[in-house]
Amino acid sequence: MNGAESLVRTLVAGGVDVCFTNPGTSEMHFVAALDKVPGMRCVLGLFEGVVTGAADGYFRMKGTPASTLLHLGPGLANGLANLHNAKKAHSGIVNIVGQHATYHIGYNAPLTSDIEGLARPMSSWVRTSPDARSVAADGAAAIAAARSAPPQIATLILPADTAWNEADGIAEVPVDTQRPSYSPQAVDTAAKILHGDAAHTLLLVTGSALTEHGLALAERIAGKTGCTVMGQTYHPRMARGRGRFSVNRIPYVIEQALPILKNFRHIVLVEANDPVAFFAYPNKPSMLKAEGCEVHRMTAWGENSVAALEALAGALHATAQDVKPQQHQELVKPTGALNHATIAQAIACAIPENAIMVDESVTTGRGFFPPTAAAAPHDWLQNMGGSIGFSTPVATGAAVACPDRKVICMVGDGSAMYTIQSLWTQAREGLNVVTIVFANRIYQILRGEFDGVGAGEPGKRAQDMLKIDRPTLDFVALAKGMGVPGRAVTTADEFNKALAEAVAEPGPRLIEVQM
Amino acid sequence: MNGAESLVRTLVAGGVDVCFTNPGTSEMHFVAALDKVPGMRCVLGLFEGVVTGAADGYFRMKGTPASTLLHLGPGLANGLANLHNAKKAHSGIVNIVGQHATYHIGYNAPLTSDIEGLARPMSSWVRTSPDARSVAADGAAAIAAARSAPPQIATLILPADTAWNEADGIAEVPVDTQRPSYSPQAVDTAAKILHGDAAHTLLLVTGSALTEHGLALAERIAGKTGCTVMGQTYHPRMARGRGRFSVNRIPYVIEQALPILKNFRHIVLVEANDPVAFFAYPNKPSMLKAEGCEVHRMTAWGENSVAALEALAGALHATAQDVKPQQHQELVKPTGALNHATIAQAIACAIPENAIMVDESVTTGRGFFPPTAAAAPHDWLQNMGGSIGFSTPVATGAAVACPDRKVICMVGDGSAMYTIQSLWTQAREGLNVVTIVFANRIYQILRGEFDGVGAGEPGKRAQDMLKIDRPTLDFVALAKGMGVPGRAVTTADEFNKALAEAVAEPGPRLIEVQM
Repeated sequence: MNGAESLVRTLVAGGVDVCFTNPGTSEMHFVAALDKVPGMRCVLGLFEGVVTGAADGYFRMKGTPASTLLHLGPGLANGLANLHNAKKAHSGIVNIVGQHATYHIGYNAPLTSDIEGLARPMSSWVRTSPDARSVAADGAAAIAAARSAPPQIATLILPADTAWNEADGIAEVPVDTQRPSYSPQAVDTAAKILHGDAAHTLLLVTGSALTEHGLALAERIAGKTGCTVMGQTYHPRMARGRGRFSVNRIPYVIEQALPILKNFRHIVLVEANDPVAFFAYPNKPSMLKAEGCEVHRMTAWGENSVAALEALAGALHATAQDVKPQQHQELVKPTGALNHATIAQAIACAIPENAIMVDESVTTGRGFFPPTAAAAPHDWLQNMGGSIGFSTPVATGAAVACPDRKVICMVGDGSAMYTIQSLWTQAREGLNVVTIVFANRIYQILRGEFDGVGAGEPGKRAQDMLKIDRPTLDFVALAKGMGVPGRAVTTADEFNKALAEAVAEPGPRLIEVQM
Repeated sequence: MNGAESLVRTLVAGGVDVCFTNPGTSEMHFVAALDKVPGMRCVLGLFEGVVTGAADGYFRMKGTPASTLLHLGPGLANGLANLHNAKKAHSGIVNIVGQHATYHIGYNAPLTSDIEGLARPMSSWVRTSPDARSVAADGAAAIAAARSAPPQIATLILPADTAWNEADGIAEVPVDTQRPSYSPQAVDTAAKILHGDAAHTLLLVTGSALTEHGLALAERIAGKTGCTVMGQTYHPRMARGRGRFSVNRIPYVIEQALPILKNFRHIVLVEANDPVAFFAYPNKPSMLKAEGCEVHRMTAWGENSVAALEALAGALHATAQDVKPQQHQELVKPTGALNHATIAQAIACAIPENAIMVDESVTTGRGFFPPTAAAAPHDWLQNMGGSIGFSTPVATGAAVACPDRKVICMVGDGSAMYTIQSLWTQAREGLNVVTIVFANRIYQILRGEFDGVGAGEPGKRAQDMLKIDRPTLDFVALAKGMGVPGRAVTTADEFNKALAEAVAEPGPRLIEVQM
């Protein structure tokens, strides 16, 4: 067998049986191997940002890495923005990038570029296979890296001759000896802090803590001790909805975050980062915690936060009896005009049991959390890297990972345009994704940021760089162009109806919410 | 004035008065400065690949750099593929990328990444401004780098606080002392080669040689000496059409290139590269020249090839009288079915005087050169870097540079989907671009490459990675979604009619050629 076949067989044997791809010439032997090796599902994207974002969404829902297949340096470059988001979410991806044949690189043909240099900023593991007999072992090492604790973006660069030359066969993925765990000492310290001054202690959680069970443990700890539990501003995935512990998040806006955080003398980090502003602004702090506030890390990314929370609850004798009953929240379908409140209410009512919510709603969605806390149980996925064009690919990959669950992708009109090609892959694969585009015809977040950075009142020419209303984007036409049925809504009643139908029907749908 | 204003004023004073942009928070002060500084035209793109490709197209037509404005590492990453193409075409671009405030970078906020690391592979000049008082001088240095010989991608990274802090004012662009010239010795050597064995000598031309006058000089030299003049496979810009010297290009397909090149004992390079295969293939050579063929470089990128050709023509006593009369070629509008031949013929008939042809026609367009040699005089722009998603942004930038000329963008359906967002910018700016999409519903080039690399006959699953027919892309709907009128054609007559109307009307149009 050749190198490409040895790699595909190694991937499948190693449990990496989905490949999101946009291949080119240098990857044709890999494509050919698909017909020889059973068990690899290949999903084509028309743009590489779709491919890498889908691999991110797949990992978040499945917990194991998918592979990608990208064409040389520029193909990788097109996928980097969503690799950035995936890296910040600690998603594992076996990111395979074709390269010229080893002996061809020196000739500086048109597509030649420094692929390793491009890969490094958004990868934690980078390797170029030197020859066909190394490809399987390198692939196995990439799988191990992608699956490590914390998971990583592992970029494997594959010169074309390593794909077509003779190889030896499958390589086994090295057994991961480093099992996710936690530090009992760190849990002891957290317990002491909570014993001492729970009223001024924030348990700041994210990552693997945000399962239904992890949240329930945090809820018991809060009930027992009186500490506050909050989430970061953004999370890779969070269990939410009826019956689950609903935590507030640190607000994005500095002026809202500071008064909340100033109450805490201690912050216990559960995978979370020190609370830091998303951007810097003139005369505003970057670090959001109060002066003198002591930060203690209980778990880091890659550690077992649920086990650590179990231990912490045990040390504090916190049990299910300590949980304060949550207020019952009634869900009523909204009527009348569409605004941020009625949109949030309509979505909360429409969320089906076990839905996957992919959130790139930006300014429209800043109030989505409170009403949806009462919705049917669901998972909520957010952008950890801040690079827009995140949601439609992540929704695509989540739907591939979970064909029996409904994916609802919430996206601003500006954000939707970066990787709109996702819709085609959703149509091609018949994926159960409802894309809701919030069409306010402006990069509304930038209008806010313009104020935030103290740039004054935007004049006509500055406004031209923020507004995207000339011409108006017609998302229903764009969806039709890629084979996805869509409709536009202008009232809450229309939105309720469109959502109910889209959720009920199989396959992808798009709703343009005209605000 | 603050740093952002000092930069915008420096750009305008330095002749860089167009900015293609997709800004974010860290660039808001630059956007605010647009209202304070007259003379900067800002053109918004909905995706960064549109922005960088437009800057490439602008440079190719205008000969002076435009600027870009991109948002942090991921915004730059999204623009890298077309920066790659621009770099390979030796286009000059002042590529401005926002960064977190200097003091904020260390906090590792979500959008933090290694921007310099991302920039280096596709830039020849990279600098991060350290403070507001340095921004103007750094901007001036970036302009000088972008304008140098050969021109460069100059990436200037602008931490947010360097934009909002107080600065000193405008900086002057350093005078370029290194004027483009050529080596008289290299011309002497070329003259000697042509004196000695012109019948076995190939004058291989590209770059600045491909003006109407440069080509006329090459034609005289060929007429006088009997040498062969050919172009590379791809060129940044080539003067073509009726009355201009039409040169053949080295074929992309190795089996076609080898028999042509085996006749030559000498190759004189005029900015061209050694003839190298685009990709490597098993058991085929990378280097296409005959064994023992001697290669002599007469001019390099950045040198004055027209002056060198003048000198060479002078040394050889080649004059206009030496030119062999070209065969008259009749242009007849095609009828009947659409195929590669009738499509080429229809386009040749429709090209208006002084049109700008942007060519990403891939397999459909491999035969476009012969018939269009008889078309009205035009410029022909090609992809030098091989990264698809090139043409619609380049057409956009070319139209901004030359509002009085008609731009015709020829693009395969697969390629069109990478940067389809260009259409919106064309509609917004009312640009005179006719986009012709060749909808064969397959990455046809990959079907050929699959054979080329010896991967056998593609099975069903491999074919799935090459064909894009499920679902069918509706480019008329996509164009409508972005405010561009479009129509689909299925016969040569319909295509003739659609082309004639699209060329006659102002503003952007799209024609989907269903093959």
